[in-house]
Amino acid sequence: MSILIKEVLLNNETTDIYIDGNQIKTIGKNLAVAADKVISGKNKAAIPGFINGHGHAAMTLFRGFGDDMPLESWLQEKIWPQEAKLTEEDVYWGSKLACLEMIKSGTTCFNDMYWFFEATVKAVEEMGIRAFLSQAVIDLFDEKKTKQIQIDIPKWHEIAQKWNNRIEFTLGLHSIYTVSAETFKWSHEYAKANNLLIHMHIAETQTEYDNSIKNFGLSPVQYLNKLGVLSPNLIVVHCLWVDETDIQLLADNGVKVIHNPASNLKLSSGYQFRYEEMKKAGLTIGLGTDGCASSNNLDMLEAAKLASLLQKAWRFDPTAMPAEEAFYCATEAGGEVFNKKTGKIQEGYLADLCLVDLKQPTLVPNFNLTSNLVYSANGSCVDTVICDGKMVMENKYVSGEEEIIENASKAASNLVART
Amino acid sequence: MSILIKEVLLNNETTDIYIDGNQIKTIGKNLAVAADKVISGKNKAAIPGFINGHGHAAMTLFRGFGDDMPLESWLQEKIWPQEAKLTEEDVYWGSKLACLEMIKSGTTCFNDMYWFFEATVKAVEEMGIRAFLSQAVIDLFDEKKTKQIQIDIPKWHEIAQKWNNRIEFTLGLHSIYTVSAETFKWSHEYAKANNLLIHMHIAETQTEYDNSIKNFGLSPVQYLNKLGVLSPNLIVVHCLWVDETDIQLLADNGVKVIHNPASNLKLSSGYQFRYEEMKKAGLTIGLGTDGCASSNNLDMLEAAKLASLLQKAWRFDPTAMPAEEAFYCATEAGGEVFNKKTGKIQEGYLADLCLVDLKQPTLVPNFNLTSNLVYSANGSCVDTVICDGKMVMENKYVSGEEEIIENASKAASNLVART
Repeated sequence: MSILIKEVLLNNETTDIYIDGNQIKTIGKNLAVAADKVISGKNKAAIPGFINGHGHAAMTLFRGFGDDMPLESWLQEKIWPQEAKLTEEDVYWGSKLACLEMIKSGTTCFNDMYWFFEATVKAVEEMGIRAFLSQAVIDLFDEKKTKQIQIDIPKWHEIAQKWNNRIEFTLGLHSIYTVSAETFKWSHEYAKANNLLIHMHIAETQTEYDNSIKNFGLSPVQYLNKLGVLSPNLIVVHCLWVDETDIQLLADNGVKVIHNPASNLKLSSGYQFRYEEMKKAGLTIGLGTDGCASSNNLDMLEAAKLASLLQKAWRFDPTAMPAEEAFYCATEAGGEVFNKKTGKIQEGYLADLCLVDLKQPTLVPNFNLTSNLVYSANGSCVDTVICDGKMVMENKYVSGEEEIIENASKAASNLVART
Repeated sequence: MSILIKEVLLNNETTDIYIDGNQIKTIGKNLAVAADKVISGKNKAAIPGFINGHGHAAMTLFRGFGDDMPLESWLQEKIWPQEAKLTEEDVYWGSKLACLEMIKSGTTCFNDMYWFFEATVKAVEEMGIRAFLSQAVIDLFDEKKTKQIQIDIPKWHEIAQKWNNRIEFTLGLHSIYTVSAETFKWSHEYAKANNLLIHMHIAETQTEYDNSIKNFGLSPVQYLNKLGVLSPNLIVVHCLWVDETDIQLLADNGVKVIHNPASNLKLSSGYQFRYEEMKKAGLTIGLGTDGCASSNNLDMLEAAKLASLLQKAWRFDPTAMPAEEAFYCATEAGGEVFNKKTGKIQEGYLADLCLVDLKQPTLVPNFNLTSNLVYSANGSCVDTVICDGKMVMENKYVSGEEEIIENASKAASNLVART
């Protein structure tokens, strides 16, 4: 399959983009190539597909089910009782809905941690986007569970060999308050031996930080360092409660960071994400939305806007995190976090890209497309999405979307009604 | 003209809504009435049109023209030199673009302060939405200008008698650092005698607050109180740098407040808007977007989301400003601020309302529509807009939108190119 996008705006110039197989093959004016599909780029701009660095896709089913509650009662009264009833079918439809929402808002790659991960794999395979998927690992410091995990992970890894090459298996270790030191250390060795990424929540709340000091005598990051599990394979999510020493440790060990501004704000986890300090230390920082139970959508342009506005606000500095940097975090930095040639429109990169509709009011006038995308538009400006060289959305329509909306709605109401 | 909306979701029930003239006449199931236009409400929910409590409509022309800069150099190098070149024609196309963007995101009423206000009037008359319009008043403490204003305001007021009844004339006094005490006092008397609203910026930045203490020996709000101009006709915008005494003074005098979270964040003006304290004091608090040069869009659902998330974040309280309150501020409270029966779908209210598309992913599942609207969706979920009993958008299409996009784009680039 080959695709030729004719005369599209790319970095302020009108050009053609030729996609062959799953790669961006050639970028240039008036390309004289034949292609299976030719798309007009008139009144459109090409941008990289977004990379959603952290989420729990199937939690779209809990969108709006519980909000504006204290964290503990929200989890105990709302989320956990429902999660206990989840079936593989529920996770499948929740993941389909998540993929649909992501595609509609221009995301071509996401990183996930949840239950029944094979149902999410099925959804992703069908929807045509790229994903890094893990089954959540929680042993609650129970030795039996810790042993079981050392059997489960290689089994999951084995299953993952059969996945479509758009989907990669990762290890999803929930957090330092739900996962034992033994599991961290074993997973670190397994990931290193098998070249796998590890994805975990860290330093999300002050409570987590305080408990870490109490239980381990160390900050969350310094505790991980003591365990010897900080490495370039590790992706740490949230990272709100960190000091200079923590940041330096992360940077020295090549750890990658994912910032989730919407979730952090809505759950009152913290708003002073130390972007400047992390950037200065040389850390690669991607952006994510977190799951829809907490934040409550999967719109990466909104994540970029929130990230930038927050930096300006709490630092009282309007020059903090300019639009270009927020956009970079939502795209190219994501590619670097996951070691993938995605998030950038460049010859030799994966053909993961979007066309945005320049005729919609929020993108007019077009003095600065990146500013318009980050500060003015939202995911709804995306018109066409190509992932892995294939069309996944054209003219704002995703094949089968009506069925997904209907079945995900049903799955959510049936789940809640079920005893 | 009459409109019948059949079987639409309204406050969790399916009902019909009958609009006659510019009013919501009847709400009920299976209404047996004939109407000039019948709309199916299938898969749609009816919500009030949003009320954008503060902005500078024509500044859409400066969207993305200057961002991520310190306030002073942004104004001096970017905004003021362009504003000095503005023509009536520019303001007309900028206002048309603003109206288009507002309609597309469900806003049916806005409050404006800018230059060449008659050009904005023309745009609003054509676009069919509701507006409170003022010409910006700035005398820079120059006696000659102060005198001229006392000639100008009655002249503008006279002109306004001929406006369409959707548009109301207000007094737009820029701020305490650009408007003299004499102009405040004279305008206050004029507004009282003629039953007009006054709209002003106040307590936006710490610099403004510090200068007020330095120049007047009082906080901005206490200075206004000393001038005797706090009244139920006064609408104060921003109100970030206020203490308990200020809040009590505003409440005691029935002053209305407009909060603009996106602008406050992006310009680093302040993020600790004292919503809870103001609510407790009994103040009516509406929401606004500010102009597109600062914030950079006119999406009131985004404003509602930001307002709520910010309260949760800086107070470290996830129960602060629930979705229902943020939605109330963006709708019904706006009606109260402007003394208009708008912002609520109720018999006898003005027919200013929207239908949202329940089949778009961000509104699925539909456990709680208000939560979905505030936390998950954005203005793009709006499908149909009725204002003053007339259709202004149907199936996401506004009549003449292509021409507006084209001419506003041209106006913006010509303006910047012009010497």
